[in-house]
Amino acid sequence: MNVMTAQSKAPKAVILLSGGLDSATVLAMARAQGFSPYPLAVDYGQRHRSELDAAQRVAHAAGAPLKILPLDLRAIGGSALTDDIEVPEEETEGIPVTYVPARNTIMLSLALGYAEVLGANAIFIGVNAVDYSGYPDCRPAFIEAYERLANLATKAGVEGQELRVYTPLIDLTKAEIIRAGHELGVDYSLTVSCYQADAEGRACGRCDSCRIREAGFRAAGLADPTRYSAL
Amino acid sequence: MNVMTAQSKAPKAVILLSGGLDSATVLAMARAQGFSPYPLAVDYGQRHRSELDAAQRVAHAAGAPLKILPLDLRAIGGSALTDDIEVPEEETEGIPVTYVPARNTIMLSLALGYAEVLGANAIFIGVNAVDYSGYPDCRPAFIEAYERLANLATKAGVEGQELRVYTPLIDLTKAEIIRAGHELGVDYSLTVSCYQADAEGRACGRCDSCRIREAGFRAAGLADPTRYSAL
Repeated sequence: MNVMTAQSKAPKAVILLSGGLDSATVLAMARAQGFSPYPLAVDYGQRHRSELDAAQRVAHAAGAPLKILPLDLRAIGGSALTDDIEVPEEETEGIPVTYVPARNTIMLSLALGYAEVLGANAIFIGVNAVDYSGYPDCRPAFIEAYERLANLATKAGVEGQELRVYTPLIDLTKAEIIRAGHELGVDYSLTVSCYQADAEGRACGRCDSCRIREAGFRAAGLADPTRYSAL
Repeated sequence: MNVMTAQSKAPKAVILLSGGLDSATVLAMARAQGFSPYPLAVDYGQRHRSELDAAQRVAHAAGAPLKILPLDLRAIGGSALTDDIEVPEEETEGIPVTYVPARNTIMLSLALGYAEVLGANAIFIGVNAVDYSGYPDCRPAFIEAYERLANLATKAGVEGQELRVYTPLIDLTKAEIIRAGHELGVDYSLTVSCYQADAEGRACGRCDSCRIREAGFRAAGLADPTRYSAL
């Protein structure tokens, strides 16, 4: 079997891609593990729509076909990321107001539907239990429960094929994520992490997400390619 | 405490409402159990859009505020209900082609998000393991796994409030469902079950769903109020 054939027979994996630093790293990791990546971005009425542009750039750079699924979560409300609640610029205790109700449950369920259509037995999601410990749906126990559910929910599960949810970032610090992605050649200038990036994808430099990202590059000892707005 | 106060303090429940016979019955059952119902319909690009009109009629008749969440599942494809695959008019073995990938997983996840926003600890879904045994996501084991997941996924779960998924129809035959709804005063002429109803909500009388519904009214010994098209 030559290399081309081997590549075309690579098992498919659905990658939840947000356009941020984490999921761009996950995409590179899935490919490095021998999967053929099928990135899925959910357009859930983000205030930071530049995220979707970033997802397009990241998928294009990886030569992977991006699927964008529109789901307007503003209809159910409940989060600063989709409502008109002000994004906090100070660190907060407990569950942040930027929490989107049932976000990862919904994202994984859409990924599960796409995986079923593709015949993929793998879903990759960039959840992280270190920097975002305030989100209940980023914990390993949640992911294990989801995997169990997925194998009861689908034809593949019924027919005995095991579906796995991969969370390669779950125990990594932001600096470790950045170093891993750097070694895999991820171009982080394509990604947007900021909760309130401008239309050109430039970051505010002040929100929680910007602060975590900036500190990550510093701790990794790597140059921060983020484009910041002049504000 | 007078009746009005008691009603306004009723615990909230999210009801997945499709406009069909089953979910209309579930809505009436939730109310009879003392819940204040918040029906949620998902506009997932159904070919039979008359279902959504029916959901509106059913919610209106129950005096409950219907939330409609648009989610175009045609973007991920894979089912005769959203693609241009022909709807089968003969009974089929195993998992039907009308299966929507990860449908109940996705619906329950959206209901979970809405429940979280409302502060509701109950979700009602009209799954049934008798007539639709070909769907893996209608089995009791699936619902139990979902309940477990939901309690790991959300703020409420983290804070020790237990969320429950109610499936009052799961062990009932179609005739038993119809008899129960009839006793609760459900007006089945408002509902549409047909996979290919016309724009006025008239049923084809030939698809799987029509056949099961018609046989249900016959077995229940009740008049079938379904409006059939002349075709």
